[in-house]
Amino acid sequence: MEMAEIGEEFEDQRFFTCIGRDGKVFDELKYVWLQGRQVWMYCRLYRTMDRFHKPEILEAAKAGGTFLRKFARIMGSGGQWKCAFCLTREGKAVKIQRTIFSECFYVMAMDELSRATGDTDMQLEAEQMMEQLIYWVQVDSSGLGRPHLPGDVPTNSMAVPMMLLCLVQQITEGRGQKVAEKYRDLGNWCVQQILQHVQRDGTAVLENVSFDGTELQGCQGRLQNPGHALEAGWFLLQYSTQWGDKELQKTAISKFVEVPYQSGWDKEHGGLFYFLDVDGNCPTQLEWSMKLWWPHCEALVAFLMAYQQTKKPELLDMFSQVYEYTFNHFPDAENGEWFGYLTQEGKVALDFKGGPFKGKNTFRSIKLLDLMGC
Amino acid sequence: MEMAEIGEEFEDQRFFTCIGRDGKVFDELKYVWLQGRQVWMYCRLYRTMDRFHKPEILEAAKAGGTFLRKFARIMGSGGQWKCAFCLTREGKAVKIQRTIFSECFYVMAMDELSRATGDTDMQLEAEQMMEQLIYWVQVDSSGLGRPHLPGDVPTNSMAVPMMLLCLVQQITEGRGQKVAEKYRDLGNWCVQQILQHVQRDGTAVLENVSFDGTELQGCQGRLQNPGHALEAGWFLLQYSTQWGDKELQKTAISKFVEVPYQSGWDKEHGGLFYFLDVDGNCPTQLEWSMKLWWPHCEALVAFLMAYQQTKKPELLDMFSQVYEYTFNHFPDAENGEWFGYLTQEGKVALDFKGGPFKGKNTFRSIKLLDLMGC
Repeated sequence: MEMAEIGEEFEDQRFFTCIGRDGKVFDELKYVWLQGRQVWMYCRLYRTMDRFHKPEILEAAKAGGTFLRKFARIMGSGGQWKCAFCLTREGKAVKIQRTIFSECFYVMAMDELSRATGDTDMQLEAEQMMEQLIYWVQVDSSGLGRPHLPGDVPTNSMAVPMMLLCLVQQITEGRGQKVAEKYRDLGNWCVQQILQHVQRDGTAVLENVSFDGTELQGCQGRLQNPGHALEAGWFLLQYSTQWGDKELQKTAISKFVEVPYQSGWDKEHGGLFYFLDVDGNCPTQLEWSMKLWWPHCEALVAFLMAYQQTKKPELLDMFSQVYEYTFNHFPDAENGEWFGYLTQEGKVALDFKGGPFKGKNTFRSIKLLDLMGC
Repeated sequence: MEMAEIGEEFEDQRFFTCIGRDGKVFDELKYVWLQGRQVWMYCRLYRTMDRFHKPEILEAAKAGGTFLRKFARIMGSGGQWKCAFCLTREGKAVKIQRTIFSECFYVMAMDELSRATGDTDMQLEAEQMMEQLIYWVQVDSSGLGRPHLPGDVPTNSMAVPMMLLCLVQQITEGRGQKVAEKYRDLGNWCVQQILQHVQRDGTAVLENVSFDGTELQGCQGRLQNPGHALEAGWFLLQYSTQWGDKELQKTAISKFVEVPYQSGWDKEHGGLFYFLDVDGNCPTQLEWSMKLWWPHCEALVAFLMAYQQTKKPELLDMFSQVYEYTFNHFPDAENGEWFGYLTQEGKVALDFKGGPFKGKNTFRSIKLLDLMGC
């Protein structure tokens, strides 16, 4: 019994998420977003790429999945399942966000793990959590725990339909026409919600709009997040390919790939800004001018996918520019892995490899490997 | 009626809190922390400094106070009064934080305004909100709206006893022995809670400790916030003077003024870091290396007060060093006022004068003016 517990603890160590510059764990909290992504990535590698089809990779994914399944999902006060945002080393919930994203990454992990193991109970659990997500987003969000306040304008925040669309693609992939049709309306709804973010006569993608697709007042309404727009771009591209929607493909490339790159690229120092204000005001986010690893990953995927679908050379040029900046700035030549956070000028600002929002392994690398045919 | 409404709206305009580089309002949301401080500052200036004893200053404070009293205080779900974190232009609540700070600034504003106007109802209201704060901090915090989670370790966060001590000083000042005695236990409790943050054999002030005064695990436990420690330092100095506590004075200067300055000053670029990790790890806060206006204001007040009380020349030297950095970097020579956020290297990173956490006027300038005898 004691030996088994020690064994379990050893397994769990692979799923620490706070990893310092030198690879050492600097905090034992385990962040569910990152554990979910890690499990998803291990399974995806195992399942889709021959050279990663190794028992130890599947075992690691299963260990992480077991931990998540046992501890991440907790019953919320309204009798609805929620996922914790982070857990102690032993799995006790530390924090719950009043958003849907921990749950989204939980669904991704469980769905992909069930594909690798054939565990149909787990697949069912992923679908049940998906139903919960749809309920929060389309019917009633009060279970998320945010009080409704009279001045709080209902907001179509880009992250929500984007993540749901990503989950629709995850859950339906390769599961046949019947499952695809089941989620078709939801997929279309997500696409429509995403397209509402194209504003200002098609010259800008705004992060927050009203549910009618009009611009919101103030900083919130003027906010741009180029990395998010680019990420939405390749989600739309994937969806347009799946359903053979040429019009959507065109919009995805012109509005969600080219526009955010034009507005979001730092002409002085290179790299993509984290946040911008469409009117040129200074954003109020202290980190607005920093260069983060993930918008660059999303841009790489978006440009390569757009190029693959169109063969337009200018898309490959943009890819090359992002590629050069990314691989010149983010990798740590000394200790391996990537840094995640640079100053506007490109200096490493935070030197850890994994933190509350950044996973140790670069989650998107798998999509890139796939696109590059590696 | 319509004219009156326009008139009211004009009054309220003085209390917009998001002010751009050039002085223009860039967002109409009104942040309660900042409105509270502004009302407090106007009243304090009016009440304590002859050259600000002008009817238009009192009128502005009253307009802001009326707005706050009418709109900021809202009944929470548990039947307890809360204050909104921000309001729309018209006063509708947009966001409520699950902390005590909006309420603290509300108490400061109402207490100080009641002193300037003689409004005893308002003073009573400030005291009632103070009772609510004490209840949350010392008895039961569930009314703040945070679910209790099994992995969430109870934390003595420096900000809480600091703010309460500041309020004790606000409420008791000049109100005689009886009121001072009423809040004496609370004041002593705050001091003890603050002193628990001195850790590592007196070589560090940590932002979060356990309620027994021991160090907490992980990043949270290792976090240092030099500006906060310096601010606590001068709160303790004031308290030690009030009660003639020489031992506390000594601790305040050596542990809360000198130690955070030694550890928090950036030897390479000058200025005080926002956050540090006591073991030298990289903090996970993206803005950790930025130079913010407020830690520098707190440092100026702390050093000048410590010098005033001790006449030790090294404290004046430290003051001069902070003064030089502060006045060389934060003021905007072109459009007046101060910038609030610089990069580690001292470049303006966010150019607005007022934002969600920074007021247009520098709240602490009044304490500095007072100490400098201006």
